[in-house]
Amino acid sequence: MIIEVKDVQEGYVKSETHNHVTTIEFFHPQGNSLPGKILADLAHEIVYAGNDKTVNVIVIRSAGTGAFCGGASFDELATIKTEAEGKQFFSGFANVINAMRKCPKLIIARIHGKCVGGGVGLAAAADYAIAVEGAEVKLSELTVGIGPFVVGPAIERKTGLSGFTQLAIDASHWRNGDWARRKGLFAELHPTLESMEESIQRLTHTLSHSNPDAIAELKKEFWKGTEHWDQLLMERAAISGKLILSEHSKQALKKIFDARAKAKA
Amino acid sequence: MIIEVKDVQEGYVKSETHNHVTTIEFFHPQGNSLPGKILADLAHEIVYAGNDKTVNVIVIRSAGTGAFCGGASFDELATIKTEAEGKQFFSGFANVINAMRKCPKLIIARIHGKCVGGGVGLAAAADYAIAVEGAEVKLSELTVGIGPFVVGPAIERKTGLSGFTQLAIDASHWRNGDWARRKGLFAELHPTLESMEESIQRLTHTLSHSNPDAIAELKKEFWKGTEHWDQLLMERAAISGKLILSEHSKQALKKIFDARAKAKA
Amino acid sequence: MIIEVKDVQEGYVKSETHNHVTTIEFFHPQGNSLPGKILADLAHEIVYAGNDKTVNVIVIRSAGTGAFCGGASFDELATIKTEAEGKQFFSGFANVINAMRKCPKLIIARIHGKCVGGGVGLAAAADYAIAVEGAEVKLSELTVGIGPFVVGPAIERKTGLSGFTQLAIDASHWRNGDWARRKGLFAELHPTLESMEESIQRLTHTLSHSNPDAIAELKKEFWKGTEHWDQLLMERAAISGKLILSEHSKQALKKIFDARAKAKA
Repeated sequence: MIIEVKDVQEGYVKSETHNHVTTIEFFHPQGNSLPGKILADLAHEIVYAGNDKTVNVIVIRSAGTGAFCGGASFDELATIKTEAEGKQFFSGFANVINAMRKCPKLIIARIHGKCVGGGVGLAAAADYAIAVEGAEVKLSELTVGIGPFVVGPAIERKTGLSGFTQLAIDASHWRNGDWARRKGLFAELHPTLESMEESIQRLTHTLSHSNPDAIAELKKEFWKGTEHWDQLLMERAAISGKLILSEHSKQALKKIFDARAKAKA
Repeated sequence: MIIEVKDVQEGYVKSETHNHVTTIEFFHPQGNSLPGKILADLAHEIVYAGNDKTVNVIVIRSAGTGAFCGGASFDELATIKTEAEGKQFFSGFANVINAMRKCPKLIIARIHGKCVGGGVGLAAAADYAIAVEGAEVKLSELTVGIGPFVVGPAIERKTGLSGFTQLAIDASHWRNGDWARRKGLFAELHPTLESMEESIQRLTHTLSHSNPDAIAELKKEFWKGTEHWDQLLMERAAISGKLILSEHSKQALKKIFDARAKAKA
Repeated sequence: MIIEVKDVQEGYVKSETHNHVTTIEFFHPQGNSLPGKILADLAHEIVYAGNDKTVNVIVIRSAGTGAFCGGASFDELATIKTEAEGKQFFSGFANVINAMRKCPKLIIARIHGKCVGGGVGLAAAADYAIAVEGAEVKLSELTVGIGPFVVGPAIERKTGLSGFTQLAIDASHWRNGDWARRKGLFAELHPTLESMEESIQRLTHTLSHSNPDAIAELKKEFWKGTEHWDQLLMERAAISGKLILSEHSKQALKKIFDARAKAKA
């Protein structure tokens, strides 16, 4: 994969296909927290690989050795001025989840580090998430005056209601990888990066040689009952988009930026 | 909280609000098993706190160091003579669960001891249950010729079908707190009372300072799909209310009262 | 139970009733993998015991000390020539699951060994599965070019979506009994056969003395929302019945038979 200076500064989404396996990698310098541009590119690449008849399996991963995904970009959150802009921003994660949901291939997520907010949603929307120890999860939305409304349905679908409510209510609390595995968010949790890579290698190899018609039918079965999510997740984006304009959210974002500025000084 | 002699003899429900946190405490001298009067008062206090704009979080707890809640009062069960009286009695737990469900605030349950029957339902209907080791759970309904029909939907919602069916079928078997935590009935299980209190303190403090609009939206999301429970739980109360008149139930209650009389003698 | 030479060669289904407990035992010499004839007999015996007013509890078990159930018979799979024949074959497991679902008695499964494919479906469709260590589970359908479409709804109902998708996607991987217990597929997992038998004995004794009206109502509650399965599982049988004619399936079956022939030589 060719990475340019601009990519390192502004983030990127890149795809590569080898042996019928497409790997989609995203990156953003601020702890893989995602602005609307990256989310749109990510959704686009998923749709593209889903339509490519030569592709049998998709792996979603992120770059770096830090967080897998820090959720929504605070920088962009802070620029939202109207409910319409708010809905527009939060529809970014909705579009990615819906792309994953409607993709006729199985999607494996490679979770090499922490997941926050929308990042937990990406792990949940994958058909099979393979993680390594240290991959903790947190839904911090309530601490910034909003809630995990867009990603909620994807998370609840995997963890059941109790796992989701625990994450959403105790919003400042990290749950470890073992918790995520026990709740069904991660299908596998590995002690080392090597063991995680080996498992991804093995599974993608097997799936790329499996009957694609059977896989397309499986994918349909796995996601049955979610046909209304195109609309549902947009309604959810509107809720978050309205709440982010609240005084609570403004104060919370101000605190985060003040802390950041202080850390830099 | 002021407790009078009458309270100690007949049981009570009391509420207190400090720093936007309302604590609702119930008590009954017979192991916190609940007659219709206490259930009605409990439902009433939940509705009241839910409507109070100065309240941000609700904690439900019970008094004493024994059981958190022993379920339905056997004394009152034994007085039921008609199906209508039966439905009326079992609607007591239905009304409490529906009040918890429709309350726009998050409800934390403080589970300091064992939960039986309806008591498991209270833990399940809370949005976040914090328990201490020793808080075992049992659905003993089948042993008295009935079933956990009223509380079933609340329990299944949290534990999934398998947890609920295990409890309902093996009705004389206590499952320990760790089982309840793993099944999602308890969000947290603490080794000591102190650690449980500390966690409740921390979480109520955080939630009382969170965006109430975000919390109200979260509560709606958590309970979506249960809009029919006002009717459903009443239908369930009618099923239990009919079964309690069976010969099986009469014999089972007689055995319990004989054993009690023998223990007193 | 009287077992004849013919039974040992062609497999059998036999029922016995003692003290209101009906035990239904199936057997097939090829690792308890099931041809259409055995599946039809199994469904028939379940319906029969369900209608018998003297029966209070049903135990489903298989004979031998090997696998509990190896799933569909490969010998019979290999004979399928048309989509109609395919649907017909796969409707065998659908009929058994639907018989278990509609049976008004509680069904306990005694899982003494490994479960593959349809065998996992039988464990899942039981109301209460009691297993012994060594009872591993695998959904190997994808490795033969099809998918666990018929048994999927029964498995997902017990394990939630995440457990089911993990099994279906990583189709060559055995998950151990503890995994199955944690995911809710097994209600109990015992260290020894003796301890498993003792638990089955205790539970069947208790249930056979419980209020049958309460049990019939419980059974209805446990299976609410599955009223469309008569049709759904047939649609699923048609999907598998079509996929089994694919080139992928033909190659996979050929490999299995070649390996078998080599092992015999």
